[in-house]
Amino acid sequence: MDRYAELRSVARGLGVDAVALVPGPNFDRVMKKPFYTNERAFAVVIPAEGAPAAVVPKLEMRSWDLVGFEGQTFDYRDETGPRAAFASLAAHLPLARLAVEGQVMRVFVHHAFLTAYPGLDIVDGEDAVSALRLAKTEAELAVLDEAIRISEAALAETLADVRTGLTEKHVEKLLIHALFRNGAEENAFRPIVAAGDNSARPHASARADYSICAGDALLLDCGARWRGLNADITRTVFVGHATDEAHTVYAAVLAANRAGLGIARPGATAHAVDDAVMSVLEASPFADRIRTKTGHGLGREVHEAPYIMRGNHQVLRPGMVFTVEPGLYRIGGFGVRIEDDVLITPDSCRSLTSFPRELTIVGR
Amino acid sequence: MDRYAELRSVARGLGVDAVALVPGPNFDRVMKKPFYTNERAFAVVIPAEGAPAAVVPKLEMRSWDLVGFEGQTFDYRDETGPRAAFASLAAHLPLARLAVEGQVMRVFVHHAFLTAYPGLDIVDGEDAVSALRLAKTEAELAVLDEAIRISEAALAETLADVRTGLTEKHVEKLLIHALFRNGAEENAFRPIVAAGDNSARPHASARADYSICAGDALLLDCGARWRGLNADITRTVFVGHATDEAHTVYAAVLAANRAGLGIARPGATAHAVDDAVMSVLEASPFADRIRTKTGHGLGREVHEAPYIMRGNHQVLRPGMVFTVEPGLYRIGGFGVRIEDDVLITPDSCRSLTSFPRELTIVGR
Repeated sequence: MDRYAELRSVARGLGVDAVALVPGPNFDRVMKKPFYTNERAFAVVIPAEGAPAAVVPKLEMRSWDLVGFEGQTFDYRDETGPRAAFASLAAHLPLARLAVEGQVMRVFVHHAFLTAYPGLDIVDGEDAVSALRLAKTEAELAVLDEAIRISEAALAETLADVRTGLTEKHVEKLLIHALFRNGAEENAFRPIVAAGDNSARPHASARADYSICAGDALLLDCGARWRGLNADITRTVFVGHATDEAHTVYAAVLAANRAGLGIARPGATAHAVDDAVMSVLEASPFADRIRTKTGHGLGREVHEAPYIMRGNHQVLRPGMVFTVEPGLYRIGGFGVRIEDDVLITPDSCRSLTSFPRELTIVGR
Repeated sequence: MDRYAELRSVARGLGVDAVALVPGPNFDRVMKKPFYTNERAFAVVIPAEGAPAAVVPKLEMRSWDLVGFEGQTFDYRDETGPRAAFASLAAHLPLARLAVEGQVMRVFVHHAFLTAYPGLDIVDGEDAVSALRLAKTEAELAVLDEAIRISEAALAETLADVRTGLTEKHVEKLLIHALFRNGAEENAFRPIVAAGDNSARPHASARADYSICAGDALLLDCGARWRGLNADITRTVFVGHATDEAHTVYAAVLAANRAGLGIARPGATAHAVDDAVMSVLEASPFADRIRTKTGHGLGREVHEAPYIMRGNHQVLRPGMVFTVEPGLYRIGGFGVRIEDDVLITPDSCRSLTSFPRELTIVGR
């Protein structure tokens, strides 16, 4: 079995001679071993036909040995830099067109290829390469389930400790501790802990100088990363009590969340899901508070295809996982977001997240 | 005061019309506010003369408002993508040559610039741009001190709990919990917990299927990230007892570490520091176990300039911070690394890390 068969097919489909991978989600999935580089140039080149080849920092060769690479490796020392290794690669494996992962590869690697291959036509193959991991395997789903279990346990424990007078930063700390205490290996992303007017910012930063007040909305958006897969869940609660406005807004967001889960199934498009969710919000009295689309794919990256938005006519297929996270945000007021992680099943969909969605009052 | 004065000077020095920043360490330092984007294209363009301009996802405009940007912003919705916003940028701010951060900017942003500015000459300005943060400010050093305090407390607490029979994964979990318990906001990097033969891999991954044995070397390499600055410390201990070989190797590595601290001062070069450290290891009976250079700069990134290696004739200046982390690694045997974070002071140097360096036996 050629573990590069799918990538070779992508190369042929894109009309390129080869696909280059750098460490990241696609690399992890294909190579089955974590591998690390940071400031050092690294790339694996998988041609449409024939043996792959790689440029690897000499420092990483012991780790690289564990990957069990089948092709030629050109290594280099920090003292001399990667230029000669890339030149050797170019002599070994001539290329005219190369597809790269535009969302993952950084410009210095791009430039290293261009220097070694003058006139090389580098195309952004991100969509085609990452499409290979759209349908999650059973093994990936089992790992994701655990990442979600960890995240939901952390969310529950954190909410149990919330009370007025705590700063957003303090609650952020409680949440991060709870994530790691429950088994997270990493944060999938820096959690969002946003109270009061900060909850109206979709990507707010926790403030050290804002203490939670009675009546505040409190939005928590977090996820554990576990064995390479990422959870992503948001709940918005109210502290002490909820105003009438809060109840009405919350009901609209929850109805939109339910609409997304009601329509997502194999054969539906990402557009249709967003349209169903947004239609609920647009028909509410709060249409002017819409700031975001419905959601994004979730897996080895926190944000990946399929992006659940109008205009994306990608058809949903079994095994795809994405967030449904409608929100309403009144600038200077408060925001509400309810985010679940949804799996497309053979005949419908299922929320992998099961944390209660009802309006919840905490801290009393 | 023009907060872009230094960047404008870099642009003139590189002979480019402008410098582009994407979210990351340079952006954080210049803009003084954290800002987040992931799969969405974002860039700030700072010309050598005149007002800056930016392309920002519409979703992030509430956060962008907090940055207090002085120039024109071109935003875009996910549904339509960033192409029109980059085209508007190009119409507003013509450019022939642009410097980018090669280690930070990803290829899809590079391609967005090339599409909007056909024929644009994009040069990698990473070294010149990042050189602006070589000398740490007093405020940055205070933050780094706290990140180091957190890391050393976590290291001490973890080592107190080590005993034979624990897996590397278990110790990794203890270490991560201890980091967050002590106040880390993030891991500066995925910690390394490597015992026995795994300690001989400079960037090992913790194993779930290896239990620590009596006599094992145990290498812990970790760092807290706190308010945007990163600590990085390694200690190697021995479990239960240490062999004669372990004692001899450890002494050689410690002597090399001391040599680095002995020579680092303003006016010395990175080359000279690495040369002093490596000379100690090369003169030991274990020269064939050298795998790595002396160290790397440390600050808003875990790996940044100055890189402490032979051939790098960069002159050390007060305020620079870098690691001194000599190691000896016998493949199939064990490895030892002793890593400190070192600040160049006005007349000498000082280790910011103060964790004991003597050979330590744990778990008995």
